[in-house]
Amino acid sequence: MTTTDATAEVDGPIRNGVDTATLFATLDAVKQAPEAASFQFRAHNQWVSGTHNRGTIADYFGVGEERSHERTFVFDADHPAVLVGRDNGPTPVEFVLHALAACLTAGLANIAAARKVKLTEVRSTVTGDIDLNGILGLDPEVRNGYEQITVRFTIKGDAPAEKLRELLEQSRARSAVYDVITNGVPVTIEVDTA
Amino acid sequence: MTTTDATAEVDGPIRNGVDTATLFATLDAVKQAPEAASFQFRAHNQWVSGTHNRGTIADYFGVGEERSHERTFVFDADHPAVLVGRDNGPTPVEFVLHALAACLTAGLANIAAARKVKLTEVRSTVTGDIDLNGILGLDPEVRNGYEQITVRFTIKGDAPAEKLRELLEQSRARSAVYDVITNGVPVTIEVDTA
Repeated sequence: MTTTDATAEVDGPIRNGVDTATLFATLDAVKQAPEAASFQFRAHNQWVSGTHNRGTIADYFGVGEERSHERTFVFDADHPAVLVGRDNGPTPVEFVLHALAACLTAGLANIAAARKVKLTEVRSTVTGDIDLNGILGLDPEVRNGYEQITVRFTIKGDAPAEKLRELLEQSRARSAVYDVITNGVPVTIEVDTA
Repeated sequence: MTTTDATAEVDGPIRNGVDTATLFATLDAVKQAPEAASFQFRAHNQWVSGTHNRGTIADYFGVGEERSHERTFVFDADHPAVLVGRDNGPTPVEFVLHALAACLTAGLANIAAARKVKLTEVRSTVTGDIDLNGILGLDPEVRNGYEQITVRFTIKGDAPAEKLRELLEQSRARSAVYDVITNGVPVTIEVDTA
């Protein structure tokens, strides 16, 4: 792990809150054992009433074994009153926008740390335009999902604007959620009614 | 609104916690004014440290005006320690799975109510398989996002199994998140480094 040790000696391994020594060590470890990178993430959901339901995120598989988050995360979802719900949580489609911002931001912090750029501020707003005539079944020409999603970032750090843009572009190029949303993923649905 | 009134008279407008009178009235209203169905949903995000960032969901546009949820929803996202984070929240890709379960479940409850089926239990688990050699940049053959997502539902109610399956199939056919995930959406990214 020459790279890691060299980095640590030159300017310390923690940058942007990222432990770059561990980051590079993890990359080296996966290079040696690529199967460690096979993960399965999971979300569980229980219907409450109407459009209100509750998701839990707790367990996942990775680095060869079953794992648990340090705590169980619980998220309610609902529709607002204007969409015949009770606003007990965000709508499901809003969670998709949150996921995209979170993924691009986490990647940006990691990449900046690896490239020795210190970030001082990262904010973003994601907007998704949707015509509900699709899901309401009122216009067969209208798709169910978002027609367009736009992400607007404000990024500040100790590098020129061009460099900061490069970091964000690299985060986009390696973002799991960006890939899922722009390229799509096959989804299989199974049902047990026993 | 003959349909609505008839439903109300026959067996009451509330079913599965869904106010079916309001549901049908909303459909009628959008039929009369399709532009009311143009919504923009939004998520805001602020970087905290490393892979830890915090999303807020509060404001949206719909039915012709700016609106706010009844409260601001706040969600932390992070990576677990095994992915060089501190596990302050789910990973961004886990929120995508939660969104899918929530959307299919909300739709199921609405559709069951509209078709006069009383649900007694709806549970689901969504799993997403991902090879992190993609986002780690270690294998150009591997995509960044999920390779496959599977949703497993348990549904119980006062209808035959075949009917319950039909309700879920109709929910899938009208799900915004299912459409986003399976068909993809164009995403534009803008950045301000001032």
